[in-house]
Amino acid sequence: MDESMGPRRVLVIGGGFGGLACARHLAHHPEFEVTLIDRANHHLFQPLLYQVATASLAAPDIARSLRQVLEEAENVSVLMDEIETLDREGRQAIGQSGRHYVWDTLVLAVGAQTSFFGNDAWEPHMMGLKSLEDAQGIRRLVLSNLERAERSEDPEERRKWMTVGIVGGGPTGVELAGAFADLIHRSMRNEFRSIDTRQLRVVLVEGSERILEAYDEDQSEYARRRLERLGVEVKTGTRVADVTEGVLHFQGGEVLEARAIIWAAGVEANPLTRQLGVELADRAGRVTPLPDLSLPGNPDVFVIGDLVRMSDSEGKAVPGVAPAAVQMGKHVAKVLLGERHPGNLPESRPPFRYFDKGLMAIIGKNAAVVKSGGLRLKGYFAWLAWLLVHILFLIGFRNKLVVLLGWSFAYVHDQPGARIIVHRPRDARKEPVEPT
Amino acid sequence: MDESMGPRRVLVIGGGFGGLACARHLAHHPEFEVTLIDRANHHLFQPLLYQVATASLAAPDIARSLRQVLEEAENVSVLMDEIETLDREGRQAIGQSGRHYVWDTLVLAVGAQTSFFGNDAWEPHMMGLKSLEDAQGIRRLVLSNLERAERSEDPEERRKWMTVGIVGGGPTGVELAGAFADLIHRSMRNEFRSIDTRQLRVVLVEGSERILEAYDEDQSEYARRRLERLGVEVKTGTRVADVTEGVLHFQGGEVLEARAIIWAAGVEANPLTRQLGVELADRAGRVTPLPDLSLPGNPDVFVIGDLVRMSDSEGKAVPGVAPAAVQMGKHVAKVLLGERHPGNLPESRPPFRYFDKGLMAIIGKNAAVVKSGGLRLKGYFAWLAWLLVHILFLIGFRNKLVVLLGWSFAYVHDQPGARIIVHRPRDARKEPVEPT
Repeated sequence: MDESMGPRRVLVIGGGFGGLACARHLAHHPEFEVTLIDRANHHLFQPLLYQVATASLAAPDIARSLRQVLEEAENVSVLMDEIETLDREGRQAIGQSGRHYVWDTLVLAVGAQTSFFGNDAWEPHMMGLKSLEDAQGIRRLVLSNLERAERSEDPEERRKWMTVGIVGGGPTGVELAGAFADLIHRSMRNEFRSIDTRQLRVVLVEGSERILEAYDEDQSEYARRRLERLGVEVKTGTRVADVTEGVLHFQGGEVLEARAIIWAAGVEANPLTRQLGVELADRAGRVTPLPDLSLPGNPDVFVIGDLVRMSDSEGKAVPGVAPAAVQMGKHVAKVLLGERHPGNLPESRPPFRYFDKGLMAIIGKNAAVVKSGGLRLKGYFAWLAWLLVHILFLIGFRNKLVVLLGWSFAYVHDQPGARIIVHRPRDARKEPVEPT
Repeated sequence: MDESMGPRRVLVIGGGFGGLACARHLAHHPEFEVTLIDRANHHLFQPLLYQVATASLAAPDIARSLRQVLEEAENVSVLMDEIETLDREGRQAIGQSGRHYVWDTLVLAVGAQTSFFGNDAWEPHMMGLKSLEDAQGIRRLVLSNLERAERSEDPEERRKWMTVGIVGGGPTGVELAGAFADLIHRSMRNEFRSIDTRQLRVVLVEGSERILEAYDEDQSEYARRRLERLGVEVKTGTRVADVTEGVLHFQGGEVLEARAIIWAAGVEANPLTRQLGVELADRAGRVTPLPDLSLPGNPDVFVIGDLVRMSDSEGKAVPGVAPAAVQMGKHVAKVLLGERHPGNLPESRPPFRYFDKGLMAIIGKNAAVVKSGGLRLKGYFAWLAWLLVHILFLIGFRNKLVVLLGWSFAYVHDQPGARIIVHRPRDARKEPVEPT
């Protein structure tokens, strides 16, 4: 490649935390002509997706137009397209639109998606939580089921609509279960005339012996007690053997009838990693790059974020969380900026180092757990810490003040404000077919 | 009907301005057992629907759970269902769910829907604006078309995606045209790299000689000048002869290629009016009730809101606007409350009187027209009046303070915050098929 030919064409695929951080750090450097491609037109603040699913926030509160974020970065173009093919020989990616995107350097940052780990037959009976569409779908389903229960004149029928099953006791499952219990048992408790919302069951199912396994044992135990106090049934040590329409079948033969089943038990890398021509590092489809985050034998292809399974230069495993993705995106930008001038050769690239800021998960209202370095928090102060960190992170979203006020309002009045069912387009007048 | 048998069963169909006002005014009167049915679970603040369509507000900002509004009204039940059949003989309504709802008194308040006045073949090629789904559909289409234009490498192709046609120069058409012009020509002007957003055309088409016909002539002229200054092409005296995919055909043979076509030219009453057994008053399917708003020969069936074509007791025509619907809903409640005791006979019912608060329409940022009694305003003060009235009306919505702050933020930064494309569910990963 002749460096004198013009700016280096950097193709960043994916506008999540990693891809966006990389593009932002290459902005205002005219030596680079950056193209950022995402299948959505927005960057999504995924850590708050559960709040859209549980009717506390509106979709635009946690999503921001990528164009708007990168408006002033004149060397960055944003295009909405879904990449289907990586042509490594031809150094180009091909989108669903048919357009070819040529790269000198590729940064693949397409993230993770819901995975049923080989049980794809379960998919039609469950909902994952990885996109705004998912979140709105969950909200629509749970609220619509309550409406069906209230409308039904048959007590048996009614009972069936009143169970929400959540599979997976990690942070997403715990946050969803806590928020749904809050919403239904507390905020909506006086709103129905036929059904008794206290009878609505939120059941959280976890295969291993405790929820929030990444935390300390007493934090897991605390989370369990908090959830139970909110009315959540926590079933640990319970593995799913099969899922059929409206029914979770557990190993051992027990079943749970639930018209809303949410799958928060696993994710896998976007299948584009299979087109990279390297061996996959695990069955979740992730790959292990070199310490500089480029692929072995291919210094112009970088892989970052949830696509990556690696330990950093100090031997620490890098988790699939937003701060890790942001740090990797910045690292790639730093590597590229270091090579603007011909004198810098790839062998001098710095290795990626992960700075671990810790973990936090929220459990309904007023309670959270925090694990960061030697620090362990649980309860109200952990919740305050969670709130502070998330508000600070939301900089540049719809307006963090607006979101904060929305929360404060909902908090004081115990009335989450986004409890509306927006029907699906096209069949807006028809409800989804009810399973028989 | 034996009054001693228990509370009077009042069935209110429709949770818009009229139906909700009626239910609220019957609340806390245990002599009435009120059932409010709507096909949505929310009351919608329709006057701001155009702001959801043009990406200024999120859907939950202008919609509120009906259950939440009526939570404390213990004698009111809310049910989500779509009524398909009115069985007047059997005094019952039958919903899409199959459930039968029996009434002693019926209040029909199902409002208006988009009408193509006999040209139903046009429907697949255009979008109306009557529901949240409509508004989100318009937002998705216009923003997606801009993305397609930016992505396209063919200048001719590109040009086609860059025209928004709006048919109908009433308040909805004017508000949409002004807000889209603001959004695209001002807020988004620096966000694209390939297309020049100044070339994007917003074309407002009106059949008669001026827009905003319900206003004074100089107000119409002012609105036209303001729109033109924002970059809107205003075509008055232009009638639509036909609509095909992506093309508006005008009488006289002229055509306009527009990949987004919005129909704001007319509404008609919900077709349930055809099941009332009375003669329709016009081709929009409306009916004319007696002065007390009940149907001739049927004192237990009331019709209110946009279903009604009537002049009030002083001979003033009642327009299809929110305040008229609210006043009618209250009137029916007052009539019913007056008949709680057996001594009050229907012949003593008071006639409905419409209190005209006037009209207001907004034209982009900072400009509006107001016509109220002898008062005529245009420009900045009219806009302030519009803002004040709408903020006050939003009481109880997601939180008027939150909405106000969201607006203020968007206003100061010129950055409407809801500019995200949420894909349709189910086919979330696929874009709508592009017309060839």
